[in-house]
Amino acid sequence: MTDFDLFAPVSRELAIVEADLRNNINTPLPTMKDAATHLVKAGGKRLRPAFALLSARLFSESVDHVIPMAVALELIHMASLVHDDVIDDSSMRRGRSTVKHAWGNRTSIYAGNYVFARSLSLVASYERNDLMQVLADASMQICEGEIRQMMSCYNVNQGLKDYLRRIERKTALLISVSCQLGAMISQAEPYQIQALRRYGYYLGMSFQITDDILDFVADEEILGKPVGSDVRQGVITLPVLYALRYHPQRDELARLLSDSETALSEADQIIDWVIESGGIEYAYEASCKYARKSQGQLRYLPEVKVRDNLHDIATFITVRNY
Amino acid sequence: MTDFDLFAPVSRELAIVEADLRNNINTPLPTMKDAATHLVKAGGKRLRPAFALLSARLFSESVDHVIPMAVALELIHMASLVHDDVIDDSSMRRGRSTVKHAWGNRTSIYAGNYVFARSLSLVASYERNDLMQVLADASMQICEGEIRQMMSCYNVNQGLKDYLRRIERKTALLISVSCQLGAMISQAEPYQIQALRRYGYYLGMSFQITDDILDFVADEEILGKPVGSDVRQGVITLPVLYALRYHPQRDELARLLSDSETALSEADQIIDWVIESGGIEYAYEASCKYARKSQGQLRYLPEVKVRDNLHDIATFITVRNY
Repeated sequence: MTDFDLFAPVSRELAIVEADLRNNINTPLPTMKDAATHLVKAGGKRLRPAFALLSARLFSESVDHVIPMAVALELIHMASLVHDDVIDDSSMRRGRSTVKHAWGNRTSIYAGNYVFARSLSLVASYERNDLMQVLADASMQICEGEIRQMMSCYNVNQGLKDYLRRIERKTALLISVSCQLGAMISQAEPYQIQALRRYGYYLGMSFQITDDILDFVADEEILGKPVGSDVRQGVITLPVLYALRYHPQRDELARLLSDSETALSEADQIIDWVIESGGIEYAYEASCKYARKSQGQLRYLPEVKVRDNLHDIATFITVRNY
Repeated sequence: MTDFDLFAPVSRELAIVEADLRNNINTPLPTMKDAATHLVKAGGKRLRPAFALLSARLFSESVDHVIPMAVALELIHMASLVHDDVIDDSSMRRGRSTVKHAWGNRTSIYAGNYVFARSLSLVASYERNDLMQVLADASMQICEGEIRQMMSCYNVNQGLKDYLRRIERKTALLISVSCQLGAMISQAEPYQIQALRRYGYYLGMSFQITDDILDFVADEEILGKPVGSDVRQGVITLPVLYALRYHPQRDELARLLSDSETALSEADQIIDWVIESGGIEYAYEASCKYARKSQGQLRYLPEVKVRDNLHDIATFITVRNY
């Protein structure tokens, strides 16, 4: 989504964000710098900076003042990614050079902390305590979500509510906060800030559901990871929840999914059943519903060109087929 | 140092901090709560809260307003401890239940992040941007220090400067910031804030050098970990640096220390040589020097009873023999 026309109104600012991301991890420590540079180079869609910038763009032509915030938001996202990547036992079993792995683990943790602290410093530079409070609250909820995600693996008895709360913490919250903070530093009225916060929230939900669908249907090469990796890791997503309720073989499906060995060895069977069940279509409907809800919030916002972009981004998110 | 008379002027507030620490990790998530409660119960000297409170006490009788800050400082310290404890490969090799270990690893990381975010929220409640900036800067430097410590293991070519910078980041910085922040929220003059920042810095340096000495000479039971654990892990401390320069067997010592296997298997020999070299006495002198420097800063502070306590704490730190 980077080379994505809908971000065009802030493409100049996004280029500056990209350069600033590299500058902001400029530490005299080679290890730290290597780890952090690797993270920045790994790229990503820079969605959070884009949403902060686009949200601000609704209220003023110039959004240069949003750039440090946009960088901070991406750094927070990167910090959570690097911590997620910390090697767990299972990947170590496959590994050879254990010393290297151990260093990798610790470096990942400290690099994540460093990048997060760097983002705090950027946010503090606005000298606005309300911004920090929003971020601190979101950070706590995101951490809770990560623990929830961890605990919910292989649990076939979880409900829709568990899933929704998890993707809220995992994805929707930081996108929501990105829109909200972009507005908070741009003379938006309180009701407009709230509308953007909700826009980002619903859009984030739609985005994550689409992502969870793609784990079943996307091309492996484009996805950047094997199809079905959620299933293999025991992550129960919306299509799976649907299949667990409606597929004729649901009991057997539950058995395979609740054990880490069978989830791995029988992944192909599980994926087939999920697709057969109509879980993909169900999840697609849910994603569209959230996208429409996000678009519904736009009526509270100024009628400027960028509002149409925000509208179209929500549509695009549900149909993207990479 | 908790049941320590020199903290008496703020003992009531420290008791409230202790209770608040438990309340502040009150999350609906059992795993997170268990991990965090375990951390709080593990205790610790609550040095950072004590220094924030004592520093504030120089300027006013009531220091209740410092309690949230004191809690935040201890939470930041706890967050760094839980991340330090993340199991590395070597401890995993010994372990049996690898799944449990993997969960432990991830939970540690997320619990650390959660506790850190909680502390941010407490600091943000002061609505003082300058406080947040001080903490963000300190956090970045502490992370850099953790990476440096990791990279410096088994490196016998490091100099005194490397060691001092490392203990500055590891210990002195957060104690320094605790004193500084206690003063910043308590009507201290800028020159007094600076004096307390420096007092905390020098005291923290003295404290860590003493800690590094204790790894050679303390009673294992009181230390809570095996004597010589730094040597075994390749952590080069001040007594070792001295021995590497002055012991007749310094070349052989360097050889043993620069390899993780011999550092472990020949730890007793290494410890003997370090003690023989006079490295302990040298480090003790250095610790005393820093303690005196910290006491020197007290002349800029109000002549109230608690100033004597701060003076005596610095003396105590160099002579404590548990």
